Amino acid sequence: MPTLWHCQGVSLTHAPAGAVRQGSLRELNLALVLGRIAAAERPPSRADLATATGLTRATVSAVVEDLLAGQLVSESDPAPRSGAGRPARGLVLADQGPAGLGLEVNVDYLAVCVVDLAGEVRHRTVHRADLRPVAPADALAQLVEMAGAARDDAADQGLTLVGAALAVPGLVDDAGLVRLAPNLGWQDVPVPALLAEHPPLIEQVPGVPALVVDNEANLAALGELHSQPPGPSSFLHISGEVGIGAGIVLDGALFRGVRGWSGEIGHLPVHPEGRPCRCGGQGCLEQYAGQEAIVAAAGLVRAELPADTATARLAELAEAGDADALRALHDAGTALGVAVAGVVNLLDLDTVVLGGGYAALAPWLCPPVLAEIGARVLTAAWSPVTVRPSTLGAEAAAVGAAGSVVRRIVAQPAGWLARAG
Amino acid sequence: MPTLWHCQGVSLTHAPAGAVRQGSLRELNLALVLGRIAAAERPPSRADLATATGLTRATVSAVVEDLLAGQLVSESDPAPRSGAGRPARGLVLADQGPAGLGLEVNVDYLAVCVVDLAGEVRHRTVHRADLRPVAPADALAQLVEMAGAARDDAADQGLTLVGAALAVPGLVDDAGLVRLAPNLGWQDVPVPALLAEHPPLIEQVPGVPALVVDNEANLAALGELHSQPPGPSSFLHISGEVGIGAGIVLDGALFRGVRGWSGEIGHLPVHPEGRPCRCGGQGCLEQYAGQEAIVAAAGLVRAELPADTATARLAELAEAGDADALRALHDAGTALGVAVAGVVNLLDLDTVVLGGGYAALAPWLCPPVLAEIGARVLTAAWSPVTVRPSTLGAEAAAVGAAGSVVRRIVAQPAGWLARAG
Repeated sequence: MPTLWHCQGVSLTHAPAGAVRQGSLRELNLALVLGRIAAAERPPSRADLATATGLTRATVSAVVEDLLAGQLVSESDPAPRSGAGRPARGLVLADQGPAGLGLEVNVDYLAVCVVDLAGEVRHRTVHRADLRPVAPADALAQLVEMAGAARDDAADQGLTLVGAALAVPGLVDDAGLVRLAPNLGWQDVPVPALLAEHPPLIEQVPGVPALVVDNEANLAALGELHSQPPGPSSFLHISGEVGIGAGIVLDGALFRGVRGWSGEIGHLPVHPEGRPCRCGGQGCLEQYAGQEAIVAAAGLVRAELPADTATARLAELAEAGDADALRALHDAGTALGVAVAGVVNLLDLDTVVLGGGYAALAPWLCPPVLAEIGARVLTAAWSPVTVRPSTLGAEAAAVGAAGSVVRRIVAQPAGWLARAG
Repeated sequence: MPTLWHCQGVSLTHAPAGAVRQGSLRELNLALVLGRIAAAERPPSRADLATATGLTRATVSAVVEDLLAGQLVSESDPAPRSGAGRPARGLVLADQGPAGLGLEVNVDYLAVCVVDLAGEVRHRTVHRADLRPVAPADALAQLVEMAGAARDDAADQGLTLVGAALAVPGLVDDAGLVRLAPNLGWQDVPVPALLAEHPPLIEQVPGVPALVVDNEANLAALGELHSQPPGPSSFLHISGEVGIGAGIVLDGALFRGVRGWSGEIGHLPVHPEGRPCRCGGQGCLEQYAGQEAIVAAAGLVRAELPADTATARLAELAEAGDADALRALHDAGTALGVAVAGVVNLLDLDTVVLGGGYAALAPWLCPPVLAEIGARVLTAAWSPVTVRPSTLGAEAAAVGAAGSVVRRIVAQPAGWLARAG
């Protein structure tokens, strides 16, 4: 069985063309039943699935046998039942079998995680280091090493990695080329080709791309969208790291823009004639509310801080009432609020999620953000806006990346089953 | 037949519930055939329509007879035909029969127009005056008087007004209440109730709301979207008057936001600690690129200018090389460019249309807007953005409003035919 680091993505949104063959009918039924199990609030019985899908009991039973044999679902404790008779056993997504690998390269950390079908994070490693002086090939080599350890840990837990998604803080084209990641200093980095030089970690199955490269703010927003319990279907998710990116979720889908470059909130000009930015512009939000700007404003010297402690140290100082840290966070929150107020005036979103490094700083960022919204958003008086930290914390992008792989497996389970058989 | 100024809007997007009755099948066929005629690039023959719709020739002929009898379509010159035989006559949307009334109240003008089924503007009146000192009821009374003259002119041309849409420069709720129009000074103005105090001008037919009230920037953007020849399906349309509003069109549909308040680009903060704005905020785009800001920066005294000449006078001075006017337009274009660059970074749109008063000032506004995009948009180097004036000019909102009525008639022609019968 070939294992690859990269392949062309395949469309999951179209049914097979032409007449429905026996094989493809089975594929559709597998996806239909597995999708119902994934979406159910309580573990459904076979009878529940027959009702929900309109398939016959016999068909559901046959499909469930296939899913059980292929380690895609398992049987849970009996589902509670109000009527008479023996309680039926419920079906849940398996905690063994196929899993997704989530990867992230950011300015000051590398992150790797493994997420199982049920959405549980089964492995997580974060390595904090300043990646700016590191060549892209070397940064990716470090990430591959971490991913190898993750693969081994996953195997020990009965999990097989069948796809990977990599989050980068920049603009990525359809072929996985990183056109520009200004804070990393990456330009036109052919990530799939660089990863292909390493031994493969992924067991490829039909229907699941071995590697997808995407913007980290997009993947973090998708992670938030699919986190439990479900939140609103439209929101702005802001990833606050050294750079600041946003994922715009509208009606349950990521809005990518006309050419896929949406979400660059970090380069909204908040002081048009202000500080120069790495992007070539001036007065961009990042220069006032990016992690380095906050650290500097708090009087901390970034070079003297271990890479993993900048955000934690800020939170610690603010907690202790340090005036410089509190002022720095207030000013950053005000700049962030100016940009967010602009976005809300423009898009009329009612929920703003502070993710990435912002999640841990939310107690100090939320009040000035809300103050700017109150002062600047035309509809604020009668249409309140909620601002809250991400539930996924700082590694949301890696978790969102792995989750995006898992959703592809659930949407097209026949590929995995063909391999298992 | 009752004629009303206001009624509840009806949904046009859902097919009738339950089994398809004979009556509703006819309704669907009427809409199907009329929609094809409206969308065709060349006048289709009955045979073309049968091919395009999948209906039988006999059904198409019967439907076309109904549409002809009801003044919804007429026969044009013979369609060119490459094959053998007598050329068939083509069908076009009628230039008589039902029409839409477009209305606009803006800060310094009232506008009324009538658009026929084919999208032609058949009547247009603009009355320039400062509406800020005028009570909402009085402004609407003036508008009704203009609309009465428009109705009479339309009747002389064989047109019957079957619905109206009113554009206002502010936030409108689903019931037509203008929650806030800061530049007009309107707050919680019950427009439908105020209009209902006047004699009706609209002949109500099923399926077409007698009155819809909407944001002017939204209606102007819809006007641009449906103008000929068709442009891109995603763009930002900016209405630059005393206030500045935007309509965001994504994939051929207006993006209204979670609660319908999207598009307030005029309140994007371009100098967060700058000039106070009527909205209560500070440094909003309107304070630097709104019509009054440009007029003042050019050294003109607004009160000394007749209301209809502010934009024209600016263009005249700029044309003549007046240094103050050129600097004022350059500075306004720069402020506008800062805001537009933010929107493009956020939404990744590749087309920006300058509408309203900006259309006539585009020769001087476009260069600084493009310069800011070039300097501030992360993807500008490889993903160019087009900035161009609106094809509809200053009264785009009224034309867009009337066009929105016409599209409802085309989508649901049975209502008009029932009345005609």
